[in-house]
Amino acid sequence: MSGHVLALSGGVGGAKLAAGLAAVLPPERLTIAVNTGDDFEHLGLTICPDIDSVVYALVGLNDTQRGWGVTGETWQAMAMLKALGEKGWFNLGDRDLGMHIARSWRLRGGESLSEVTARLTRGLGIAHPVVPMSDDPLRTQVLTEAGWTDFQRWFVELQCGPELKGIRFAGAPGAAPAPGLLAALERPDLAAVVLCPSNPFLSVDPILAVDGVRDRLLSLQVPRIAVSPLVGGKAVKGPLSKLLAERGQGEDNIAIAKHYGPLVGHMVIDSGDARDEPGLRALGLEVVVMPTLMKQAEDRARLAQAVLRAAGLEQD
Amino acid sequence: MSGHVLALSGGVGGAKLAAGLAAVLPPERLTIAVNTGDDFEHLGLTICPDIDSVVYALVGLNDTQRGWGVTGETWQAMAMLKALGEKGWFNLGDRDLGMHIARSWRLRGGESLSEVTARLTRGLGIAHPVVPMSDDPLRTQVLTEAGWTDFQRWFVELQCGPELKGIRFAGAPGAAPAPGLLAALERPDLAAVVLCPSNPFLSVDPILAVDGVRDRLLSLQVPRIAVSPLVGGKAVKGPLSKLLAERGQGEDNIAIAKHYGPLVGHMVIDSGDARDEPGLRALGLEVVVMPTLMKQAEDRARLAQAVLRAAGLEQD
Repeated sequence: MSGHVLALSGGVGGAKLAAGLAAVLPPERLTIAVNTGDDFEHLGLTICPDIDSVVYALVGLNDTQRGWGVTGETWQAMAMLKALGEKGWFNLGDRDLGMHIARSWRLRGGESLSEVTARLTRGLGIAHPVVPMSDDPLRTQVLTEAGWTDFQRWFVELQCGPELKGIRFAGAPGAAPAPGLLAALERPDLAAVVLCPSNPFLSVDPILAVDGVRDRLLSLQVPRIAVSPLVGGKAVKGPLSKLLAERGQGEDNIAIAKHYGPLVGHMVIDSGDARDEPGLRALGLEVVVMPTLMKQAEDRARLAQAVLRAAGLEQD
Repeated sequence: MSGHVLALSGGVGGAKLAAGLAAVLPPERLTIAVNTGDDFEHLGLTICPDIDSVVYALVGLNDTQRGWGVTGETWQAMAMLKALGEKGWFNLGDRDLGMHIARSWRLRGGESLSEVTARLTRGLGIAHPVVPMSDDPLRTQVLTEAGWTDFQRWFVELQCGPELKGIRFAGAPGAAPAPGLLAALERPDLAAVVLCPSNPFLSVDPILAVDGVRDRLLSLQVPRIAVSPLVGGKAVKGPLSKLLAERGQGEDNIAIAKHYGPLVGHMVIDSGDARDEPGLRALGLEVVVMPTLMKQAEDRARLAQAVLRAAGLEQD
C-alpha cells in the first residue's frame, strides 16, 4: 500500500523514530513536523532544539552516547564565552553553533523558519521534508512556585528541579501551522499520523496546540498511532516520569493514552510495559507490544516498520 | 618620568607592540586605540579583526605560529556551516567565534562598540584600556579594476590579488572618535603618541581619518613616534610590500615617513633597514635603529622600552 505519513516529533526519542521512518519511506511519502515550542534565543542565536535533534538524527550526526547534540562535539566557543564573562547556562557545542549561526543569520535576513529549515536540511543532503510545526512563535512555558518560566530555563538551567504545576503554550491560539505541516494535513493521500515517542505534555501537545491541528487530526479518517516514550515504565530521557508522577494520574501508558484521548487509536508500547496492554485495550485502543528502545539504526527501522504495519501500510 | 602614552594600533604587528607597551606600562599610563576600519559583518556576526588581534595579544591568546587568530584554535563550527551550504570565505575558528558571538549579542542589545570592548576585555582580565577608534562605522574600502570593495573581501576572499588602485574610508568624515580615544587625546598628562607597526595606509590611516584625530595629533606638543612595520625591507605580514610597490613611491621607510609627513617626529626602524637612516634624518626625523621583529614577549617589551626612551619617557 502507498500513502503519505505525517510524523509529529519532539526531540531525542521522536527524532530517532523520525530517522527510522525516513529509512523505510521515500521522501515523497513522509513529512516530519517538529515541535518548536522549546525554541529560544540565547546569546543572540535562535536555537531550535527539537528541529536540531531531528536533523542530526536524520544525517547520523546525533550523539548517541550523550543522548543529545552532535557527535564529535567540542566546546571551544563556549569556553571563550565563559572567559569573556558571558553566562553559559546553555551549553553550545562548536558544531552545533554552526547550525545556530546559519539559522539565526537566515532568519534575520527575513526567511521564515520553514524556509531556513528547508535550506539547511537541503544543504545537509536530507531529502525528507522536515518542517517546523509553525513559523509563528508558540512557546512552551511551565509553572513552578516561582511563577511561569520558559521551558528551556526549567529544563536546562533549573535541571527540571522545581515541581511543575502547570504547562501553557504562549502564543496559542494565534500560531498558524507552517506551510509544510498544513500541506501534509490536507494531502488527499495522507494515510497515517504518527505521534513519535516524545514527551506528550511538553513535545507533542505544543504541536497539537497550533491553530487547527488538533481538530484537523480528529477529523481525519486515517490511523493515528502513538509510539509510547515509556520503556519499561520509565522515560528513556527527560522529565516525563517526573511529570507523570507529579500529575498524580498514573505513571504508565494508560495515563498517556487518557491524555491523548480520541486523538489516538493505536499505541505501540514497549515489551517491558506489556502489563499496560489490557488497560489500553479497555480504552478501545489497538495495541502493539514490542521492544521500542532504539539503540541502533536497525531498532529505529524495525519500530518504524511496526508503526506502518499498525497503520495498515505494508512495506514493499 | 611619568605621563600617558596613546598607542594607535592595527592588527597583528601593532598588537604585538601594544602588548609590549602593556607589559612595561601600568594600565593608567596607556591607552590602546585600535583601527576598526576593517570591521565587517559575516553570517550575522560583527567581526573586529584588529581589536581581536590586540585583545588576543594582550592575554597571550594570539597564535604566533599562524600569525593571526587564537592559539589552540579549532574549526568545527565552520565545518558545520560549510556542510549546511553556507559560504565560508572568512574562516572563523571556534574560540574566535565565542568572541564574535558575545560582541554581536551585546551590540544588538544596544551597547556601543566601546562599551562592548570594555566589557569583554574586563572579562578577560585585561586592565589596560583597549578602545575602538570610533563607535561609528568607518569602513576601509579598496579600489581595484572591479570597483570599490570592502577591505576584508579584498584581503581575505581575494587574497590581496587584484591590484590596489585606491583606498578610501567610507563614513569619514562623520565618524567621531570613541570616548576612550577622545579622552586620551585630551589628557593634560599625555606624553607620547605611538604609531604601532601596522600598515600605514590600511591600518593607521583609518584612525587618522576619524573626525579631528589628525589635527589634534598635529597640535599636540608631545613626541609622535612611528615604529616601522618593515623588517629587513619587507612587511612581516600582510599586503604592505605589495602596496608600496604598487604605489611606486619607493618601498622603504622613506616612503612611509613621507606618507606620515609632519605627523611623525621619530621613527624606530629595523636594524636590517639601517640604510634608510640617512634619508629619514634628511627629512628631519629622529631615528632609532634596532631589531624590531617581535617573536617573544621579551622582544615586545624591549621594543616598547625603546619607544618610551625615544619619547623621553625613561622607565623606572
